[in-house]
Amino acid sequence: MTEIATKPLFQRLALVGAGLIGSSIAHAARRGNLAGHIAITTRSPDTLKRVRELGFADSVHDDIASAVAGADLVILCVPVGACGRVAEAMKPHLAPGAIVSDVGSVKQAVIRDMLPHIPAEVHFVPGHPIAGTEHSGPDSGFAELFDGRWCILTPLPDGDANAAARLRAFWEAAGSTVTEMEAEHHDKVLAITSHLPHLIAYTIVGTAVDLEESTKNEVIKFSAGGFRDFTRIAASDPVMWRDVFLNNREAVLEMLQRFSEDLSYLQRAIRWGEGDKLEEMFTRTRAIRRGIIAAKQA
Amino acid sequence: MTEIATKPLFQRLALVGAGLIGSSIAHAARRGNLAGHIAITTRSPDTLKRVRELGFADSVHDDIASAVAGADLVILCVPVGACGRVAEAMKPHLAPGAIVSDVGSVKQAVIRDMLPHIPAEVHFVPGHPIAGTEHSGPDSGFAELFDGRWCILTPLPDGDANAAARLRAFWEAAGSTVTEMEAEHHDKVLAITSHLPHLIAYTIVGTAVDLEESTKNEVIKFSAGGFRDFTRIAASDPVMWRDVFLNNREAVLEMLQRFSEDLSYLQRAIRWGEGDKLEEMFTRTRAIRRGIIAAKQA
Repeated sequence: MTEIATKPLFQRLALVGAGLIGSSIAHAARRGNLAGHIAITTRSPDTLKRVRELGFADSVHDDIASAVAGADLVILCVPVGACGRVAEAMKPHLAPGAIVSDVGSVKQAVIRDMLPHIPAEVHFVPGHPIAGTEHSGPDSGFAELFDGRWCILTPLPDGDANAAARLRAFWEAAGSTVTEMEAEHHDKVLAITSHLPHLIAYTIVGTAVDLEESTKNEVIKFSAGGFRDFTRIAASDPVMWRDVFLNNREAVLEMLQRFSEDLSYLQRAIRWGEGDKLEEMFTRTRAIRRGIIAAKQA
Repeated sequence: MTEIATKPLFQRLALVGAGLIGSSIAHAARRGNLAGHIAITTRSPDTLKRVRELGFADSVHDDIASAVAGADLVILCVPVGACGRVAEAMKPHLAPGAIVSDVGSVKQAVIRDMLPHIPAEVHFVPGHPIAGTEHSGPDSGFAELFDGRWCILTPLPDGDANAAARLRAFWEAAGSTVTEMEAEHHDKVLAITSHLPHLIAYTIVGTAVDLEESTKNEVIKFSAGGFRDFTRIAASDPVMWRDVFLNNREAVLEMLQRFSEDLSYLQRAIRWGEGDKLEEMFTRTRAIRRGIIAAKQA
């Protein structure tokens, strides 16, 4: 999928956070020789210890200062709600000319929180790889996570074009197809393609959990009837998703309103036995699956 | 997975309908030598023609009378709304002692519609294999569909125990694990494990389709963020699912009400920035995925 660069794209890659995404970036960078040195720092001592054991970083740091010092690429791989705090903490230690990026599922809030802490001589290029699994933590990362997946960059209007191009090259070498869009548009598109689906999945799994104990066991037993497709995404990292909903509130609430109206329409059709409305709706939705298969995102 | 019987369990298996489930039963029966003869009838001339071309039946019938004549096992593999009509049509042609079953995702309505047309000397044992894919039609069937999946039988309280045991043996030989429950309980359990998830998936995919053209393309492009998990089940057969919702109305509406309350709770938590409530809910739902993986239904 990817060629191995003969010369690393970056001298020193610093990753803040080593969950699914952070550890996968480390593996992908190692696979493609994308960084001369991979430094990792995380806040949790347990995660730090585990990263040391797994050995996918060249250096593991319990302080952010020593991790980002001298790095020409710093990527924040933390829940979006933590980005502002991390940016503030690392601000005095960033090297001039460094590129700072992130992997958050929300872009406007991350820009709002991080931008005030980005030094003038540092280039901030927000990013979001559209890839993941329901697993989390440093053990869940793997080099192939980004292969064939989209990575969206939302460069700032007055940002450095060369920095954006270098970050694009990094993600492409990590296996992704890179596209750019405005942060506001990103947040709307992701609200419908990712945030709302997760909210719905969390809700329906929660509804099932709340049913009495006997039915709950049967929910697991007979989950092949459709339910299990929801449980996978409802097993995603709780803190990451809490922060997504808190930080993309307007777009999520708008999509949720549309969804609720559509659900009420079908609910009414069921109550009144209007089979034609149900069949018409169910027929229209088939086409979009074919589109996804054609786009090789299935 | 299954042993090949040296002697077929049934002399003549008649399948009414040759969609995903009907054709998969034919393949599974062939694989396991479960029937001496496999007869298929369907209402659509195109499907009949295709079944002849695919060659997985011993005989293909354009009339239900000749298909079920002499059969000791008849399985209706049609949308649940069609079961009553089919039962009425085949009534005069059923052999004494035959077992009649179905594969419908709703059991109370199927019993209500079929039972009046079951002759006294024929044994009616309703059934429901919990297996499927998003594909439909005679080309989509395959012998392994039922392997390791549950099949629920809902025998009538005054039904013939021997007939239920013979049908159980058939499904077990087709690869399924068989369990029995009352029809009313079945319809409640399936409402939460299957019917509501499908309704939700159809709704969210429909909501996305209704967004303007540019966003729709991006919905496909960035579907790996969660949305694609919904599109698979929203590509399921529209007529089959229309009938499910029309025929399991009360249980679906009850589960939908619970779901809507839970969704409103999360919606309110997002609006008011109550991250603790979101995190608590998202943490609880993780456990159920682990249960599904442990139950080998993932």
